[in-house]
Amino acid sequence: MKAKEIRAEDLNAQKWIREKVKELQKKVGDGLAINALSGGVDSSVVTALGHRALGDRLKTCFIDNGIMRQGEPQRVAVLFKQIGVTVEIVQAKKAFFNALKGITDPEEKREAITQTFYKNVFGDIVRKSGAQYLLQGTILTDVDETVAGIKRQHNVFEQLGIDPQKAFGYKILEPLIQFRKDGVRKLGQALGLPEESFNRPPFPGPALAARVIGEVTPAKIAMVRKATTITEKLLATSGAFQYLAILHEDRVTGMKQGKRVFGNQIEIRCWDSLDARTGTPTRLPFETLEKLAGAIVSAIPEVVSVTYNITAKPPSTIEAI
Amino acid sequence: MKAKEIRAEDLNAQKWIREKVKELQKKVGDGLAINALSGGVDSSVVTALGHRALGDRLKTCFIDNGIMRQGEPQRVAVLFKQIGVTVEIVQAKKAFFNALKGITDPEEKREAITQTFYKNVFGDIVRKSGAQYLLQGTILTDVDETVAGIKRQHNVFEQLGIDPQKAFGYKILEPLIQFRKDGVRKLGQALGLPEESFNRPPFPGPALAARVIGEVTPAKIAMVRKATTITEKLLATSGAFQYLAILHEDRVTGMKQGKRVFGNQIEIRCWDSLDARTGTPTRLPFETLEKLAGAIVSAIPEVVSVTYNITAKPPSTIEAI
Repeated sequence: MKAKEIRAEDLNAQKWIREKVKELQKKVGDGLAINALSGGVDSSVVTALGHRALGDRLKTCFIDNGIMRQGEPQRVAVLFKQIGVTVEIVQAKKAFFNALKGITDPEEKREAITQTFYKNVFGDIVRKSGAQYLLQGTILTDVDETVAGIKRQHNVFEQLGIDPQKAFGYKILEPLIQFRKDGVRKLGQALGLPEESFNRPPFPGPALAARVIGEVTPAKIAMVRKATTITEKLLATSGAFQYLAILHEDRVTGMKQGKRVFGNQIEIRCWDSLDARTGTPTRLPFETLEKLAGAIVSAIPEVVSVTYNITAKPPSTIEAI
Repeated sequence: MKAKEIRAEDLNAQKWIREKVKELQKKVGDGLAINALSGGVDSSVVTALGHRALGDRLKTCFIDNGIMRQGEPQRVAVLFKQIGVTVEIVQAKKAFFNALKGITDPEEKREAITQTFYKNVFGDIVRKSGAQYLLQGTILTDVDETVAGIKRQHNVFEQLGIDPQKAFGYKILEPLIQFRKDGVRKLGQALGLPEESFNRPPFPGPALAARVIGEVTPAKIAMVRKATTITEKLLATSGAFQYLAILHEDRVTGMKQGKRVFGNQIEIRCWDSLDARTGTPTRLPFETLEKLAGAIVSAIPEVVSVTYNITAKPPSTIEAI
């Protein structure tokens, strides 16, 4: 059954949090809950909510899958330390890159990451922890897009009719399931999260693997990670809903030191959107676009070409894969 | 030996044409010359110049290689008929698509087109015609880029140290070899060519095959041809040096009728440039960019995403491949 939507403008955040805290305490009881923090808005908000409800009876892990943004594990650990939450960083790069080897199909990539995350890396942690509950930051937009067949989100087993207890050995709690992004941000604010953690651009579950067209390798992740750092820095004040850099598999002709090279291409997307369901490309000033392109070709020698996406969603989507 | 540059601003077009006409008449004498008209600026100007010098002793063919723009053969034939030049249209689609089958490397594509054009299709025509001279629209920028190793132009055998008489059986005349684009346009005007033939954006030798990343097939050419028609129509009044649409091989996620699809991407490039040696992306209004993207995704159902290139040349190049 699909959860009933709570619109951001109808949300009394403090009241909702009080009720949800009680509900989570009642559900988990004397048990142990566990969650994986990705550093994104949804997982940050659900972590803060979970710790308010369960304190030390919620164990929070950050899985370093090797496909995160620059400095992300450290950033997240420091940020949550400030609000009294200890985050355990788990090194798992090899497992993810091994699982991604040779895979080019976007769905198969997502599936490889999901399976590695749940069954392999996080599954092991959960089983060893003795936790009975898994706390997840699933939101309503994830459910909509999965049901509509647009994108297979990695955290919506129940909506797909998969029994998570049978498939993975634990019970899933999804307290944010009635909200869209704007509602989640409002909750983050009410939970006292620092501005940067609840007001940052959305980032996909499969992380930088969703920003590489074709096979994901450590070298390609290194390239798209640099482009992502530059893009997020230069567009931080753009006011846009989301901005991202994508590494293409196609290669194009370029010139370096007066010689022909066959180099890589980075695509920038920057969206005006309220809730990610529809969107239009942000009308960035050309000075900004040129600065972006210049910084990217300077920082990443393999890249000779940078494009800006000019298509509305639909028929485009926020992410490329 | 590299030809001495004549700069557009130093060119007395009528005087130069008178002298070149005499020179061509002297060289060809009672012989027969032949040329292949592509419809581009350079080949149009060299055709007009050649006919002024040689009249019926210059035979002009248009090879329909299947990778031309929409309606191009008809457009060119009608245009030249107006200035008294009969253009023979030669059907050769099959030969070119067969030669391009399975080839993804840009250099190999160019080579396949060159070899099919010279040795196979045009070579046959030349040999049957009995012509001893081949008239070509090679300009100085082609030579520069070939010598610099940026791009292997298909019409600069001599500069590469290949003897065209030995390799292909005829002697090449290249009367425009001292000019860059602006000089060629000035000559076109002086030769009385209609505005549209000498003042149109440059188009590459390998035609739409240079606008398809990866293998060239009739279906891909049909897609990029539609995108090219739209791009050239909407940017005709942009004042830009050149504008083009590129079909990527990479596929990206999109939404059609509320369902996820894995569709194609078109990249638009629009250049401010004087002579193609360097360039910057034209700062097109976002209204135009959005109109372009909307028209392309409407006209080509397979396309779900359109980008605009924002990189300067160098390190980018005018064309992608």
